Amino acid sequence: MKTPVLARKASPDDAVFWQDDNLYLLDQRVLPLKETFIHCETAGDAARAIADMVVRGAPAIGVTAAYGVVLAARDAWREAGKGWRQAMREDLSLLAAARPTAVNLGWAIARMDQLARTLPDDANPEPTLLDEARAIHEQDIAANHTLGDLGATLMQNKTSVITHCNAGALATGGYGTALGVIRSAWKAGKLERVYADETRPWLQGSRLTAWELVRDGIPVSLLADGAAAARLAAGGVDWVIVGSDRIAANGDVANKIGTYSLALVARAHGVKVMVAAPTSTIDMDCPTGADIPIETRDASELLGCGGKKMAAAGAEAWNPVFDVTPAGLVDAIVTERGIILSPNTKKLRQHMA
Amino acid sequence: MKTPVLARKASPDDAVFWQDDNLYLLDQRVLPLKETFIHCETAGDAARAIADMVVRGAPAIGVTAAYGVVLAARDAWREAGKGWRQAMREDLSLLAAARPTAVNLGWAIARMDQLARTLPDDANPEPTLLDEARAIHEQDIAANHTLGDLGATLMQNKTSVITHCNAGALATGGYGTALGVIRSAWKAGKLERVYADETRPWLQGSRLTAWELVRDGIPVSLLADGAAAARLAAGGVDWVIVGSDRIAANGDVANKIGTYSLALVARAHGVKVMVAAPTSTIDMDCPTGADIPIETRDASELLGCGGKKMAAAGAEAWNPVFDVTPAGLVDAIVTERGIILSPNTKKLRQHMA
Repeated sequence: MKTPVLARKASPDDAVFWQDDNLYLLDQRVLPLKETFIHCETAGDAARAIADMVVRGAPAIGVTAAYGVVLAARDAWREAGKGWRQAMREDLSLLAAARPTAVNLGWAIARMDQLARTLPDDANPEPTLLDEARAIHEQDIAANHTLGDLGATLMQNKTSVITHCNAGALATGGYGTALGVIRSAWKAGKLERVYADETRPWLQGSRLTAWELVRDGIPVSLLADGAAAARLAAGGVDWVIVGSDRIAANGDVANKIGTYSLALVARAHGVKVMVAAPTSTIDMDCPTGADIPIETRDASELLGCGGKKMAAAGAEAWNPVFDVTPAGLVDAIVTERGIILSPNTKKLRQHMA
Repeated sequence: MKTPVLARKASPDDAVFWQDDNLYLLDQRVLPLKETFIHCETAGDAARAIADMVVRGAPAIGVTAAYGVVLAARDAWREAGKGWRQAMREDLSLLAAARPTAVNLGWAIARMDQLARTLPDDANPEPTLLDEARAIHEQDIAANHTLGDLGATLMQNKTSVITHCNAGALATGGYGTALGVIRSAWKAGKLERVYADETRPWLQGSRLTAWELVRDGIPVSLLADGAAAARLAAGGVDWVIVGSDRIAANGDVANKIGTYSLALVARAHGVKVMVAAPTSTIDMDCPTGADIPIETRDASELLGCGGKKMAAAGAEAWNPVFDVTPAGLVDAIVTERGIILSPNTKKLRQHMA
């Protein structure tokens, strides 16, 4: 990974982009304080960028992995010629293992690999694979616009909403999932204000969601993650809207740690929960939430803040970075194919058929 | 307020102490990174230290205010002689207005004032008032030992617990309320591990609770505030144990923002909620939680962390620092007088009679 100087002012749509035959990522670890781009020269670079959270958010991870396969194929063709398909297998495994929870990662690699298997041995696979990665990227953006508009139709009144983590343009190919719904609702005049959980330990809400919404002129107030129940008790919020890293076949939803707490307090206040995600996030091979691998990250992420150690020396930390919200707490899953109210296995199977 | 050099290694029992005719506070704003003492020369200093959160925690605020009244009387006697009682009224108002939610503040000032009213005009009131402040301090410590032991009797099995914020020695005269129960349970062999919410925005859990527990050799793991529901779902936790800043006459409990969320997720998992507080925290003049004044603090506390701005420029913040947990979510209130199961107005009235 290199940090190039690009003549480009960062925008939320810059999470992942391909420019002059190169893969670039906007470094989300340092936003909004610094707007820095990372250049991935190899699939290994892309895998490391995913693992280190230069790029995060399930759909954005998927798009990055797709371009990562292009880089893998480029190197494999250079080094192994006709043996490129076999030569790139190790890179594909590296990409697939970068993070465990977001299923879009495996989904994108599988789609790229499926195409790779149909390509001739004796031609450079890069152009065709790049077209496919671009298609994955463009289809993700299109899906977000579609599901954003669909999700906004569920909002009956002009209301405020709570969102958790960042499921925005930065977390996707562009436009966003939860923030896609929020953007569409804002355009439709249905949105009063967004309350954004700051989302410890990584502060995706404070750093990323607020950055996106301020740029769009959408009113945003940050909340301590623990304050959501008090905010709901204060009234004026009809919906909790979140993204997802993986939706199991029964409608259980893995998303950023804190989503399950938020869904429970929403239910206690009669506030509805909408999960906005493209179908690439639905894993029909995962029967229930209990089958979703939940990533635990280093304790240091929780023991400090902003690069500064805050916790007392000697304290341990429990730092799973996702949790599972049971389908029973989810009022609607919204994908580019439509709306699933009160999701269950049967409805998801129909939706994905 | 001055920062003196004291030949003293900081301990959790140093939250508030009177030494050589002077009031000292351990500066909780900078713990555990720095162990610094603040010298309060006047009641105004004490009021400012309370407002700025040099000292925090309802009982510790009460003890500080009691010593603050001693400082007020000292200055009033020096300046006004026989007119001291009238001369110290402004200082008492200043102290009372330092923070709105903790009722122990007003309770301690009222108790000191009540005694002051019985004292002769023509004698230095300081020695008698100092004795009373010391009595308030010592009685708070004794109450915490009593309620700590009582609370521990509610724990049926060896179990882990979740606590929120810091209701430890630092938040009280000594020993702690929630941490008093935890210390007593640890001594009784009933405690496996403490999961401590880090407690944004001020990180009382990471900075203060972990500091206290590590020193006592009690196993402590920090959690993101949003992770409590996932931790409860993982099992092994039978109790949520918290302190309180004010308990209304019907048993509604004001405590650090996030307590209400925690109580809701505990109820959803069949985990019980214990509120540990001395009777000085119970406000029979406050009919319900809706009548408790909830302090909102500066947005900057939430928009940054560890003194560093983290949030995107232009984002607003909603930063109430307490919330109200309805009595219906509280399984037990434990005071130095006993245990109130499933609190309500009738039971609290009997308890306080």
